[in-house]
Amino acid sequence: MANQLTILGCGSAKPTRTTSPSAQVVELCDKQFLIDCGEGTQLNMAHMGLRTPRLDHIFISHLHGDHCFGLIGMLSTWGMLGRTRSITIHAQPDMERLMRPWLDYFCQGMTYEVRFESIHPHRHEVIYEDRTLTVTSLPLRHRVPCCGFLFEEKERLPHIRKELIEAYAIPLAAIPAIKEGAGFTTDDGRYIPHEELTYPARPPYRYAYCSDTAYSERLIPWITDIDCLYHEATFTDEFASRCKDTLHSTARQAATIADRAHVGKLIIGHFSSRIADPEILLAEAREVFPNTLLAQDCTTFIL
Amino acid sequence: MANQLTILGCGSAKPTRTTSPSAQVVELCDKQFLIDCGEGTQLNMAHMGLRTPRLDHIFISHLHGDHCFGLIGMLSTWGMLGRTRSITIHAQPDMERLMRPWLDYFCQGMTYEVRFESIHPHRHEVIYEDRTLTVTSLPLRHRVPCCGFLFEEKERLPHIRKELIEAYAIPLAAIPAIKEGAGFTTDDGRYIPHEELTYPARPPYRYAYCSDTAYSERLIPWITDIDCLYHEATFTDEFASRCKDTLHSTARQAATIADRAHVGKLIIGHFSSRIADPEILLAEAREVFPNTLLAQDCTTFIL
Repeated sequence: MANQLTILGCGSAKPTRTTSPSAQVVELCDKQFLIDCGEGTQLNMAHMGLRTPRLDHIFISHLHGDHCFGLIGMLSTWGMLGRTRSITIHAQPDMERLMRPWLDYFCQGMTYEVRFESIHPHRHEVIYEDRTLTVTSLPLRHRVPCCGFLFEEKERLPHIRKELIEAYAIPLAAIPAIKEGAGFTTDDGRYIPHEELTYPARPPYRYAYCSDTAYSERLIPWITDIDCLYHEATFTDEFASRCKDTLHSTARQAATIADRAHVGKLIIGHFSSRIADPEILLAEAREVFPNTLLAQDCTTFIL
Repeated sequence: MANQLTILGCGSAKPTRTTSPSAQVVELCDKQFLIDCGEGTQLNMAHMGLRTPRLDHIFISHLHGDHCFGLIGMLSTWGMLGRTRSITIHAQPDMERLMRPWLDYFCQGMTYEVRFESIHPHRHEVIYEDRTLTVTSLPLRHRVPCCGFLFEEKERLPHIRKELIEAYAIPLAAIPAIKEGAGFTTDDGRYIPHEELTYPARPPYRYAYCSDTAYSERLIPWITDIDCLYHEATFTDEFASRCKDTLHSTARQAATIADRAHVGKLIIGHFSSRIADPEILLAEAREVFPNTLLAQDCTTFIL
């Protein structure tokens, strides 16, 4: 399955006619990860017919309501549907303290386990790792402790050139060693080096979610050269002073970060309800970083 | 302003492509009342552009998540918008116990007061009263304590026949007494009785919300002859046994209650996600009670 990003909510705190609070599903390495879970996350999933059979981890950037009020409803619905696989919520410790009494009250007899893993939003650290990828916390600059998330595929082993398997009569049992770096000696004693037998896998994909945050150059070294950056762009230039007061970013600031970090592409989101037309945000961002895209509720980007 | 009912959510616990969890705004006597507040209530308000400047009371039927998970987001947004008028939430006492820690955490520095008034769902009692209307709790039959709500306009004073004010030279000061039942004696000593001077105001409007509930004939005396009944109709006949197990109603049962209570019209809602086409519910209800209407998210009925 292709790596992809489904935006479930690209608005900020106050919902509008077209934008719900923050939530998105990232699909990487055949797994699904939910980032933030504003009110209506499960409603927009239902609206899109989005299925999440491979979603076992949720990452909450910070404890403002527009990033987590949708959790209780979604967890409750999964219980009613008879989910059995546990779910892990990666969030600051207060999240568990607040959620437990609600889970105990509203979700009695749950068929699955809800686990909480503590995030320390001031640290850069790997908070999730499996065979194929890691997730690292990225400290952000906001009114409350907040972190973004860097998703990085691990280096993949090179692919073996299929036509050479037959040409050199390479037995299947020898292939794992070749992929790991070995060469191969044919029956007639000829040595074929590893480099000739293989070609590199595509480079590991890297995606970062940075919301909510004021303009922060400290972020740049952590996201340099990544493939795709989702960065909040709450305001247009017109609202620069409000942006400063609330520790959010303008579209132009998001684009400046993208430009200085040489990312592959930028997706902007977390639009203020004061912005009547998000196309203005897009135009302001593209003046600095042309490869900018506009998030939109209930749409999917191929990564 | 006309009495009207805006459906914000007509689904049951599991949201679907077209239905959100329970919520509706009743407008009576120039006031707005929110009944239940499932997840997405504020999102559908924003989606419709529904303004609620006269909404100061919220009634929660029971503490299942699909009837109250939208409260925290809506209250939080109102705080951000600088609301100053207090809001009163009429709900079972556990609601306050669960909500307070969330309000304290997520809604610091709120500009308005959130009050909780306890409902005793096993009692028929007036839980709200003002100059123009009352709201009475209606015990229902569900898996947890649950009550419906009967909204009743108070009797209005009769209208004075305007053409007679001039004809009999009735001074303005005499009018309140006439409306209250007095007659009037003209300057030349002729007595005009109250009945001749006035005509009755329209009968008080009565609306009842009954969700969630199994079929319950005990409800009938309390809603006899009301103008409009909203009754849950979670299932079609096909799911009758599931309906019995979960203490919900079929559309046919909702219609039977409406028929036996001689209500003016019936609106059915709280549709199960298992029902692919709500028109089947409507057809089954109309076999018993023809004046049945189908609730639909983000639509308004003139009452």
